[in-house]
Amino acid sequence: MLERREMSKGEQTRQRIVAEAAAIFNQRGYAGCSMQDILDATGLEKGGLYRHFESKEELAAEAFRYALARAVKLRTESLEQMEGALEKLLYVVRRFAQGGSGLPGGCPLMNTAIDADDGNPVLRQLVQEGIQDWKARICAMIEEGVRRGELDRKVEPRRVANTMIGLLEGALMISRLEGDASALQDAQATLETMLRGLAVAG
Amino acid sequence: MLERREMSKGEQTRQRIVAEAAAIFNQRGYAGCSMQDILDATGLEKGGLYRHFESKEELAAEAFRYALARAVKLRTESLEQMEGALEKLLYVVRRFAQGGSGLPGGCPLMNTAIDADDGNPVLRQLVQEGIQDWKARICAMIEEGVRRGELDRKVEPRRVANTMIGLLEGALMISRLEGDASALQDAQATLETMLRGLAVAG
Repeated sequence: MLERREMSKGEQTRQRIVAEAAAIFNQRGYAGCSMQDILDATGLEKGGLYRHFESKEELAAEAFRYALARAVKLRTESLEQMEGALEKLLYVVRRFAQGGSGLPGGCPLMNTAIDADDGNPVLRQLVQEGIQDWKARICAMIEEGVRRGELDRKVEPRRVANTMIGLLEGALMISRLEGDASALQDAQATLETMLRGLAVAG
Repeated sequence: MLERREMSKGEQTRQRIVAEAAAIFNQRGYAGCSMQDILDATGLEKGGLYRHFESKEELAAEAFRYALARAVKLRTESLEQMEGALEKLLYVVRRFAQGGSGLPGGCPLMNTAIDADDGNPVLRQLVQEGIQDWKARICAMIEEGVRRGELDRKVEPRRVANTMIGLLEGALMISRLEGDASALQDAQATLETMLRGLAVAG
């Protein structure tokens, strides 16, 4: 009984470290953030932190998984309630443009992609998978829409997915830099026009 | 005479430090790169580096200015030879999608924006100006095109500029992450379709 309670407490501590580290890494970047910064933020003893994570790389990978899961959950929360492919695609755009990422510091995919594209192969692999999953979800929505006769057969799913993700992430970069929502609003308007243009007339 | 030659040598050393630091910062990020990394890369003595730059912040600002000037030069090289607003806008897209940034590590605007959006106010200010300048150049091309009757009066210049910059930067992020040009090619195709749709028919 005692052992089970202790394990549970250890697991709670681990989860708290991951959540706090995710917020710090997402704001400062993995390269710009040391284990000491994590210690300072969590108030843990050095031994306590290293008992859960052997290295910064291990903690960073776990923190990224946590951050990404949180962002995906937030961005897809009511997606299944949308009827039809076009409404689902418009929801993805609206939700990204108007909602947050669930963590301070912006989108963990973009932040980690820029951080890891010239280094850290483990993080790079995780971000690649995150982008691939997102593209696959968008492509599946489009293919379903084409099958159901809702979207034009000539639509190229990969091109639409790259355009949606690229423009949303790029506009978020501009909006965060400017401290102003106009770039994200413009991206939303452009994507809505593009997506409505993919629908079969009628 | 001797004094002038010495100044010139000092200026050369300073320029070499800036150029090498720009490449390192652009790959590793400002946060992920120390003055010691710069010393290791340039082979300078500590005293030599600090004689030219009092702090990493000062060097980083100078390196960013250098990196941005290089990228802008490369991306606008033959722009003035393009005839008409539509051709100029298409050139901007093509040049970005198919050319490099002039430095290893991708686009200094995006890298520095992500690096500085939660910190370093001097760099943040410089990137903001870089993005503002780019937007202003695109808006000027569009406004000129509208005045000359080449582009539709209903075009919203700011929206087009945010869409072009956001999508090009976001797609570059994806392409660098994937080690594959398809995201940039898709962005180029989307933007070409969008821009041609702004032209007055006839």
